Amino acid sequence: MANRESVDNKFGRKALQVQDAQKRILAYAVRLESETVPLEEAQGRYLAENIAATHPVPAFNRSGMDGYAVVAADTENCREGGTVWLKVVDNIPCGSVPSGAIIPGTAARIMTGAQVPDGADAVVMLEATETRELDGIPHVGIHKPIASGRNITPRGLEISEGESVLPAGRKIAAGDIAVLAAFGIPGVPVIRRPKVAVFATGSELLDVKEPLQPGKIRNSNSPMLEALVREAGGEPVMLGAIADDLDLARGKVQMALETYDLVITTGGVSVGDYDIMGDLVREEAGDMLFNKVAMRPGSVTTAAVRGGKVLLAFSGNPGACFVGFQLFARPAIANMQGAAEPFLPEWTVILGADYAKVNNYTRFVRARLEVRDGSVYAHPAVIDESSAMVTIKDSDCLIIVPPEERGLAAGTKVRVIRLP
Amino acid sequence: MANRESVDNKFGRKALQVQDAQKRILAYAVRLESETVPLEEAQGRYLAENIAATHPVPAFNRSGMDGYAVVAADTENCREGGTVWLKVVDNIPCGSVPSGAIIPGTAARIMTGAQVPDGADAVVMLEATETRELDGIPHVGIHKPIASGRNITPRGLEISEGESVLPAGRKIAAGDIAVLAAFGIPGVPVIRRPKVAVFATGSELLDVKEPLQPGKIRNSNSPMLEALVREAGGEPVMLGAIADDLDLARGKVQMALETYDLVITTGGVSVGDYDIMGDLVREEAGDMLFNKVAMRPGSVTTAAVRGGKVLLAFSGNPGACFVGFQLFARPAIANMQGAAEPFLPEWTVILGADYAKVNNYTRFVRARLEVRDGSVYAHPAVIDESSAMVTIKDSDCLIIVPPEERGLAAGTKVRVIRLP
Repeated sequence: MANRESVDNKFGRKALQVQDAQKRILAYAVRLESETVPLEEAQGRYLAENIAATHPVPAFNRSGMDGYAVVAADTENCREGGTVWLKVVDNIPCGSVPSGAIIPGTAARIMTGAQVPDGADAVVMLEATETRELDGIPHVGIHKPIASGRNITPRGLEISEGESVLPAGRKIAAGDIAVLAAFGIPGVPVIRRPKVAVFATGSELLDVKEPLQPGKIRNSNSPMLEALVREAGGEPVMLGAIADDLDLARGKVQMALETYDLVITTGGVSVGDYDIMGDLVREEAGDMLFNKVAMRPGSVTTAAVRGGKVLLAFSGNPGACFVGFQLFARPAIANMQGAAEPFLPEWTVILGADYAKVNNYTRFVRARLEVRDGSVYAHPAVIDESSAMVTIKDSDCLIIVPPEERGLAAGTKVRVIRLP
Repeated sequence: MANRESVDNKFGRKALQVQDAQKRILAYAVRLESETVPLEEAQGRYLAENIAATHPVPAFNRSGMDGYAVVAADTENCREGGTVWLKVVDNIPCGSVPSGAIIPGTAARIMTGAQVPDGADAVVMLEATETRELDGIPHVGIHKPIASGRNITPRGLEISEGESVLPAGRKIAAGDIAVLAAFGIPGVPVIRRPKVAVFATGSELLDVKEPLQPGKIRNSNSPMLEALVREAGGEPVMLGAIADDLDLARGKVQMALETYDLVITTGGVSVGDYDIMGDLVREEAGDMLFNKVAMRPGSVTTAAVRGGKVLLAFSGNPGACFVGFQLFARPAIANMQGAAEPFLPEWTVILGADYAKVNNYTRFVRARLEVRDGSVYAHPAVIDESSAMVTIKDSDCLIIVPPEERGLAAGTKVRVIRLP
């Protein structure tokens, strides 16, 4: 019975609930400094400050039509099928300023988007008018009455001056870019992107360029993590793959934690002889945040902190590595960018097929969403082993299967985490 | 009645249905050449070729546990609570090859992910074993029977050799990157990104850096289009804004169509005096595809083709410009990249609030999706004028409201186009 006890000690990890593990990470993966980037580089970044409207939108009473700005009351006289003739006293293209106010009996030719002159309170669309000269003066004929306010967007309808339009922590998309441009913000305050070091451990790992060898596999987790880090808004820094060697790993981790904002590793966490990352964390390399999480896949997920920097050590199993990233690394990277909502959104949806597996831990099952006739279904992947790699690409959500469920029948309501 | 007839002629545009307009565009916005990019730059690109598995996955019978590879039949003898002792004849870390086959009475220490030796048909997890030396030879003690196949992922379970794994036209995401890496594809065949020229016309337009002036607005459409083109996978080439001037616009359009793959303009399409893009298209500048679409907003959307290149002229109204991009430019840019599915996905969902507006044309209403208890609701934006800019940022779908509907009640099933 030589090493039964030491083995037990090594296995005696306390499993943390996922939410507790997330909290421990986010306590250290905090908002980085802000910086100003040109508007054209702001897409995908997180706003560092609230943005308020620098002027009302529209900034003036704006014509919604090409036509004639009129005093609506003047058109009352068309009620019996007659035509009202108004003197055209102005021509207001977009970007111009009216030369004066419109008084009863007059009208101004106006373009869509142009400033409506004072006095006018409606715009008659061009197609509903005719023109002629009377005594050498251009007149516009109007055949139908128009209501006051028609075809005019009043100043400030969309936004009042000073109104908050974009909150800090918002991820900037095309519609936000339009808002920032409209308010004259050529330099956008955003949070710096975290530099995220990624490396893999495992003597079985070949580079993508190498031919396959017996017993070995190509390192697919590193390129996957690189893409995931980029998708989350981080700047991946790829540190390659190293063999299962404690000294090599220690050096790499120390350098990475000193140099980058966050360190992600894949492989080297297990209950076996090559629990490199676990051994490292048990050394004085840093404060352990956790080394076991009550989840499948990826219960061996390990996290530590050193010098304020977080180390996230994911399983080498592709499925576990992917799920671990979405649950722990993505929120960390979002939080470091000041995201108002660092976690992926959760939905309650309908399970699209029976799910038979029973777990002692909460399981995050890769699945595909389908919307049919107003309802959302999640179809679990057929192959959902921790080690499975192919089903990652076809998943757009993770079904959260609570522990100890004796299988879930199709039609059951389940919670899912939506993947980006 | 001087110019009534010419006005009518100018207005006498034939409105095309949206789908017909899309078809006309996609007939010219065709797949560009392929190119090979490094794996780390493949994210977001569209695959130019089908990718087949270069080997089975896993490539060998793989251990799913740290533990001992055994002959399952040997463990039958634990049935009465006894311990079976097996001679440990091998130690197989990840990436190593077994030194020989396992025969009854023997076992091999094996790591998660390592190749299971011939003869062994189950792996007993480390936590369920103990070790001791018998006659100076290491033995492993097993306390419970294990079923054949347990904790082993058989060769080819996920994918067989030659099986198609990624089809041409697929947009490459993190999970696809993992697949490409696993099969040793460091250079990925993708379709070239189209270079998309963007410019705005309108004498009212100020640059984002300029102070606001009476009657004018800052050009928010160009930066928005730049972001949208990038999001669609195109390479935006920003050609600035020009005043409402036919000669200026003609020169810009001709240069852009000669130089870039697709040209998008905003502004200068209307029924008024400054229908620059319409005038251009009516000249011999190219073959008109359409100059009116049976839709709101953006019925004046105009498209032409010259030298095989497509010109898309959107309204200067931000809402119309945004909708026009999603309906026409995004599919064009996707099709040029060889996308298997160039159109945005459509869902049938539940209208979340009454929608009162009645239209003679199909209306694309900006809206926000909500999933509640398994059902999907679309909440139309409160301000949905063609000219409205602020609601763009808060929309993640467009509700397709059919023409001539006398208002839609909350709870009605509606079709939506999901925005990215």
